Amino acid sequence: MTAVEISAADITQAQAAGHGVVKHTPVTASAALSDRTGGDIVLKAENMQRTGSFKIRGAMNKLASLGELAKTGVTAGSAGNHAQALAFAARTCGVPCEIFVPRNAPIAKIAACRAYGATVVEGGDTLDEAVAAARARAAEKGMQFCHPYDDAVVVAGQATLGLELIIDIPNLRRVLVPLGGGGLASGVAIAVKQHDPTIKVIGVQVEACAPYANSAPPAGPVYTLADGIAVKKPGEITRPLIEKWLDDIVVVDEDAVADAMVLLMERSKLYVEGGGAVGVSALLSERAAPSRKGTTCVVLSGGNVDLGVVPGLIRRFETQAGRRLIVFVKVSDRPGGLAKLLTIFAEVGASVIDIDHVRDGVDLHVRETGVNAVLEVRGPDHAELLIDTVREAGYEINPL
Amino acid sequence: MTAVEISAADITQAQAAGHGVVKHTPVTASAALSDRTGGDIVLKAENMQRTGSFKIRGAMNKLASLGELAKTGVTAGSAGNHAQALAFAARTCGVPCEIFVPRNAPIAKIAACRAYGATVVEGGDTLDEAVAAARARAAEKGMQFCHPYDDAVVVAGQATLGLELIIDIPNLRRVLVPLGGGGLASGVAIAVKQHDPTIKVIGVQVEACAPYANSAPPAGPVYTLADGIAVKKPGEITRPLIEKWLDDIVVVDEDAVADAMVLLMERSKLYVEGGGAVGVSALLSERAAPSRKGTTCVVLSGGNVDLGVVPGLIRRFETQAGRRLIVFVKVSDRPGGLAKLLTIFAEVGASVIDIDHVRDGVDLHVRETGVNAVLEVRGPDHAELLIDTVREAGYEINPL
Repeated sequence: MTAVEISAADITQAQAAGHGVVKHTPVTASAALSDRTGGDIVLKAENMQRTGSFKIRGAMNKLASLGELAKTGVTAGSAGNHAQALAFAARTCGVPCEIFVPRNAPIAKIAACRAYGATVVEGGDTLDEAVAAARARAAEKGMQFCHPYDDAVVVAGQATLGLELIIDIPNLRRVLVPLGGGGLASGVAIAVKQHDPTIKVIGVQVEACAPYANSAPPAGPVYTLADGIAVKKPGEITRPLIEKWLDDIVVVDEDAVADAMVLLMERSKLYVEGGGAVGVSALLSERAAPSRKGTTCVVLSGGNVDLGVVPGLIRRFETQAGRRLIVFVKVSDRPGGLAKLLTIFAEVGASVIDIDHVRDGVDLHVRETGVNAVLEVRGPDHAELLIDTVREAGYEINPL
Repeated sequence: MTAVEISAADITQAQAAGHGVVKHTPVTASAALSDRTGGDIVLKAENMQRTGSFKIRGAMNKLASLGELAKTGVTAGSAGNHAQALAFAARTCGVPCEIFVPRNAPIAKIAACRAYGATVVEGGDTLDEAVAAARARAAEKGMQFCHPYDDAVVVAGQATLGLELIIDIPNLRRVLVPLGGGGLASGVAIAVKQHDPTIKVIGVQVEACAPYANSAPPAGPVYTLADGIAVKKPGEITRPLIEKWLDDIVVVDEDAVADAMVLLMERSKLYVEGGGAVGVSALLSERAAPSRKGTTCVVLSGGNVDLGVVPGLIRRFETQAGRRLIVFVKVSDRPGGLAKLLTIFAEVGASVIDIDHVRDGVDLHVRETGVNAVLEVRGPDHAELLIDTVREAGYEINPL
């Protein structure tokens, strides 16, 4: 299939369409990633974009291109970044917006669309059903259905991010960009390669759903931290663009996504959603290498993480760093028995995260009870010190 | 007491001292805060600074001013941002650095100083003892002790942040800046007011330790989310500067600090430490108002949060948003009794966060057991739906 042409003029026009709404997001050097990989790594903090992702770039261009046609309103089927961006763009342009979401869509995302003035309607059980409902509604009411990626105007909008890289990064040699539907990845590749065809652009997909990397997408629902790029079907417009413009496509796994999200928090002080962090995952897991010469830019495409996901990420990180210890200890069940044990924990400087009595199914003397404790410690040495101290105080203690 | 003079030339010189190391950090508009307060609010994302806080600005200027004197090395007593910044600056300048930390200093911060090549030594039980140890070591070995804030050269370094605000924010009318020792707050005030004396600068302290706001500091250790600004003693150099240059000082409480940290995560996608977020706390709790005309800038001075703090912040936020429900339910203690209840929870779409059997001290029939469940729900309406559904299925259920 022949790829549609997107010209430099199309991208400049898209830039004008976003003026005053789309932020020119910052690029920041990452010492942590440069040290680890031996490259010169910078991060494009597009997670700080208005509505929390790059999608506003395409949405603003779409509305500008529709002009009068948008007056009766726009629709979309999405529970994610596209929905928020379209709602925000529609409000800015003063046109009605109806968003169709699958049942069980995250409440925070629905609330965000409503806060931007959109009407949010439940449209079936799955994303596909919600998209169908949005299309049907548009046909019925003379509204314009807006596709999240498979639209040359949307690709030109996302391409404006590439222009910013050219302006901000003097010696740009390589770009790592998340690859979902393909709108951002193809747009960025077109923009930077029109400027300098020797700049390499590498798309990053997540293992759970990587159709561009020629793995068959799963039949059922996809569960991944990188849900923003878990797009099963390459677009009719974007697939040929991706084939034509990208230099390589790599795939990362869930652990690498989690590692990247935590590193970005801890070292770069940025909240990045899983789908937005996959470029960092690719570097950390050595699926992609930085350029040996010049600068490598990792595009952090969005920051709309459900807060509820974060404690689990941190727990995993702390556990891997040896900052969690689970022990089983036998104590006297007379008054004060548990208090005495907890006093020892406190003296060693360990915090109790969870504590339970376990009496059934364990080998106990009369007037004895078992205690399962989850403790926060400073590392493996501290854990060992705690165990030794408790043992020296005469307790039977076993780490689990 | 007369305030020392810090000239525009001093600040320009400090800027040169930081060249190639200190980042010109981004300023980003905050729609969330602008909507809430009715002002035009921008955020200075200094949490993205090298070493995670503004302290590198002062440290680089200090080392430049010491010149040959620094060759034998520098010392500091700190477990926080000053230590990391001095370690990094010393490595950049190729001079030895010894950091004295109080016992029980966060292991992540010690690791960061070591990663920057500093020698880290345990120096007593408290921060004051660590500082004394650092001074003693400097005197003994002919090294230079570096104070975190009470030093005109350090103030001139922090003032470079103010220059960036002048460059980046065309219509700047007001600045909210965290106030701890006073180095950053006075430096920023001097820089912006030398440019335009009508710009207002407001310092923000945290209730737990607010000596500049004339509240007596607590006698014992201070516990606050904003530990980075919990400085008990105003400096001899900084106190007169604060009195001369700041327009106002406001105080925020712990809840406002937590609210600000979560808002910055959720809406601005930025990871900001408590002491760095107090400017946002002041706006949220209406202790400070934005300027009615022009732009108000909130300085986010650092991002070095212990990851372990974050789950608690998110838990509090989710609870306040009605996304947590605790119920006590009686179930049959025959095999399958609990499974049946959990199936109902799942069908309603609630996730189980915690579950316990409670048999002692509650009124139960024979062959019945009590269950305490902590559930994740989508909001108050969803919680009500869950309770009704369980009740209709014939269970006795009580929210706690």
